[in-house]
This record gives sequence, structure tokens and C-alpha cells, in this order.
Amino acid sequence: MTEYLVPDLAQYHLGLVALSFTAGAMLLVGALLWLLRPTIDAAYRWPMTLMNLVVLIAGAYYILLHGVWERAFAFVNGQFAPSGAPFSESLRYSDWLLTVPLMLSATLLTLDVGKSKLTSLVARVAGASVLMLMLGFTGEMQSDSGLRLAWGLLSLAPLAYMIAVMWLEVGSVLRLESTRVRTLFVRTRLVLFSSWSFYPVMFFVPLLGVQLGNLAGFVQVAYSLADVVAKGLFAFMLYFVVQQKTNELQAHRAKVTEAKQGAEQSGASAYAQY
Amino acid sequence: MTEYLVPDLAQYHLGLVALSFTAGAMLLVGALLWLLRPTIDAAYRWPMTLMNLVVLIAGAYYILLHGVWERAFAFVNGQFAPSGAPFSESLRYSDWLLTVPLMLSATLLTLDVGKSKLTSLVARVAGASVLMLMLGFTGEMQSDSGLRLAWGLLSLAPLAYMIAVMWLEVGSVLRLESTRVRTLFVRTRLVLFSSWSFYPVMFFVPLLGVQLGNLAGFVQVAYSLADVVAKGLFAFMLYFVVQQKTNELQAHRAKVTEAKQGAEQSGASAYAQY
Repeated sequence: MTEYLVPDLAQYHLGLVALSFTAGAMLLVGALLWLLRPTIDAAYRWPMTLMNLVVLIAGAYYILLHGVWERAFAFVNGQFAPSGAPFSESLRYSDWLLTVPLMLSATLLTLDVGKSKLTSLVARVAGASVLMLMLGFTGEMQSDSGLRLAWGLLSLAPLAYMIAVMWLEVGSVLRLESTRVRTLFVRTRLVLFSSWSFYPVMFFVPLLGVQLGNLAGFVQVAYSLADVVAKGLFAFMLYFVVQQKTNELQAHRAKVTEAKQGAEQSGASAYAQY
Repeated sequence: MTEYLVPDLAQYHLGLVALSFTAGAMLLVGALLWLLRPTIDAAYRWPMTLMNLVVLIAGAYYILLHGVWERAFAFVNGQFAPSGAPFSESLRYSDWLLTVPLMLSATLLTLDVGKSKLTSLVARVAGASVLMLMLGFTGEMQSDSGLRLAWGLLSLAPLAYMIAVMWLEVGSVLRLESTRVRTLFVRTRLVLFSSWSFYPVMFFVPLLGVQLGNLAGFVQVAYSLADVVAKGLFAFMLYFVVQQKTNELQAHRAKVTEAKQGAEQSGASAYAQY
């Protein structure tokens, strides 16, 4: 975080494109989710609402980050150089502190699980995610690489706890769902957590002595791709889960109506006998 | 207020995250309150509306404050230092002058109290809060610590008056509410006023000769946490008060309807005797 990036002009433009593209992509995903909203039964709209908020928040922070990047570099005496305004990824932590608990909540809200169980699951994984991010940020702020490593490793504990809850406890809840929902949910959960593996890698890279200063534009591209998967693709996968649940709910309702009509008809014919 | 903060780079980023996170958190709370609005009876929506405005105002001021913080520091000749643009917390007073009277009004609006009594309560506590903030701001503007102390102590008088009104007078009004509402209201009021105790502490700290200059980032974190509690958590606690009142109102209405139907039926059967 304390490193001072000096990209060349091509890297600078690459960073600008990555950040402004992702801002637009997040808002586009939000618009598409909103347009798809009527296809989801009211019972399963909360996960979609939360994902709308997630991509809106991410879009807003990407707009801010784009501005920070833009102001960080300038032509100084005819040379492309740092302008003096500091650049850092720290704004991403503000995004994560809000969006990570929301994404975990949205995932859990797709499941048919009792209210008290749901509250407990959400509180525990959301709490653990905030703790993970706070420990990670403390690590980012250390100039000493030993301390960075220590805080980083510490932040993996709440991550392990989250994974345990999301696989073990949620796994047992999943048995109540249909096979098709289960398959879709398992895939969605995998996309979420495997896309997250990118961020710890970026955290630990400076400890390997790798200087990313002159690759700063590529770093923005990498972060942008990770975020497009972790938020955009993930949002659509969650949509497919609730779409499947909507289909199943409608099929169930149609059956109930049919059974009722059948009962009424047989009742009517029974009556006709008299 | 006159001190010139010089955080190191880690503190700078910490401040950036605190301010940008709180901006996002306030707007997120606003969105969630808006989504929860239909669950509240129309009779109790005004407190929610005012809290929506409170978090919107707070979010906007945090965006401004984030910009002020960002512009206040820069790399000057390769050293991280003040940029020349002054940083101060003074923008917070603009926020408070608007949001503190609104929060007090929202709290009072949850109570079932006659219109003239309500107007009197709102006018007195809102007026006292504005007076408190004006005296406090005058104190902040003093470079002499004796004068700062004098104005600060003076500003505690309207605070004491507010506490007297909110506990003594509101306490007697509270007897008209159900036990459950009373419990929720008492908790909410406690969260509001105890979270406010942070701000006088920050006012008096410079008088103790404590230099917070190199902890400027932590100061922003502390303010942000206090605001997230005083506005965000408080908003949700107020929501629980009006949600409980909505439940009680609906239960009451259901009873009235039942009684009416009962009366109609017994009326009809009485009529049938003739």
C-alpha cells in the first residue's frame, strides 16, 4: 500500500480503461438484474435486491477509484510521472466492507431455511467477513513485511471459518432443496469463493519481493476481472438459482390448484348424484 | 480545529477508507430503510422518512469530507505532507445542524402524543440541539484553550436540557405505550444519547494537551464508527419501534373488524327473531 506506482503512459491508459469499464459493467449488471426482476417470484426477490445494491456500490467505488487513478499521475516538466496525489487500492476495502457481507447474505437468502437459522448463519458469516477484511487492511497498512505477513495470515482464520460454515452447515441445509437447485447453488458458491482467492494472492505478492510498480495498469485489469466475476457473474448465477426456485414454486402452485379443482369437480359430481 | 494534521501514509489511507466506507454505509442504510418502508403502517412512516433524509444528508457530507481529506495531503518533493489545502472537521457541523434536529424529531414522532404536545417537544429539543451545536462550533473556532473550554461547557447546558426533556417529559408520555414499545423506545433513546457522548469527548481532548495529529486516520475511524452507530444503528432501532407499533395497530384493527362482524351477525340474528 505504501509503494508508489509509476506506470508508463500505456499502463496508465490501461488502468483508466479497466477502472472505467468495470464501473460501467457493474451498473450494467445492475440494470439487467432490475429488468429480470419480474421473472422472479416475490418470495425470492431479496437476494436480487441485495445484488442490485452490491453492483451499485461497486460501480460507485469504481467511479471514485477511476478518479483517484486519474489524479495520481500527470506530465511533470514534460515527463509522465506521479502528480503528488497518492494512489492506493485502499478504496477497495470500503467497497468490500459493504459488499462482501451483502453477497454472503444474498447467497444464504436463496435457501429455504427457518428465520432464526438464517439470522444466525448471516450474522456469523457476515461478521467473520468484516473481521477478515479489517485484519487484512491492518496488514496492508504495515510497511514491515513480517507484520504484513502476520496480519495477512491472521485474516485467513475468519476466512476458514466462513468456508466451514458455508460448506458444512449450509451443506446440511441444502439437502432440503431440489437436485437442480442444489447443483446451481453449489456452482454459485464455488464461483464466489474461488474468485475470492485472487485477493489474498494480491495481498501476499509484495512479500515475494515482486515489484508491480511498472505493471500498475495490469494490476487494475486483474482486479477488474476478479470483481466482474466475483460480483457480476456471481449475481447472474444467483439469479439462476432463484429462477429455478421460482419455476419449482410455480409448478407446485399449479399442482395445488389442479388438485383443488379436481376435488371441487369430484365434490360437484358427488353432489350431482343426489 | 486550528491544528494542522500531518498523518503518515498509512493513517492517510485509514482516513480515506473510514470516510469513503461511511459514505457508502449511510447510503446503504438509506436504501435498506426504503426497502423496509412497506412493512410499516402509513401512520408511522414519518419517522422512517426523516431517517432516510438523515442518512442521505450524512452520506453526502461524508462524500464531501472524503474529498477534503484527499485534497489536504500530497507528495511534496517526494515526501508525504500537507498539500496546502486545509483539512478540518468543520463540515461535520453542517451535517449535525441538519441531522441532529431531524433525529430528535424522528424519535419523538414514533410516540402517540397529541399534536400540540408533539410540536412543543420537537420545537424545544430541536431548538436546544441547534443552540448546543452553535455554542460548540464557537468553541471549536477559539485558538485560546480557556475560551474553548468556556464555550464547550456552555454548550453542555442545552444538552442537559434536551436530556431532561427526553427523559422526564417523554418518560411520562411513554406510559401510554405498550410495554414492548416502551422497552424498544428506551433502548433506542439510550443508543442515540450514549453514542453522542463520543462527540464532546473529541471536543475536549485537545484541552488535555493530547496531540492527535499523527493519529488523524484513527480519529476519522472513531468518528465514522460513532456516526454509523448514532445514525445507522439508531435508524434500525427506530425501525423496530415503528414495526412493533405497526403490529399492534394491525392487531387492534383486526379486533375491531371482528367485533364489528360479531355485532353485525348478532344484529342480524336479533333482526331474524322479528
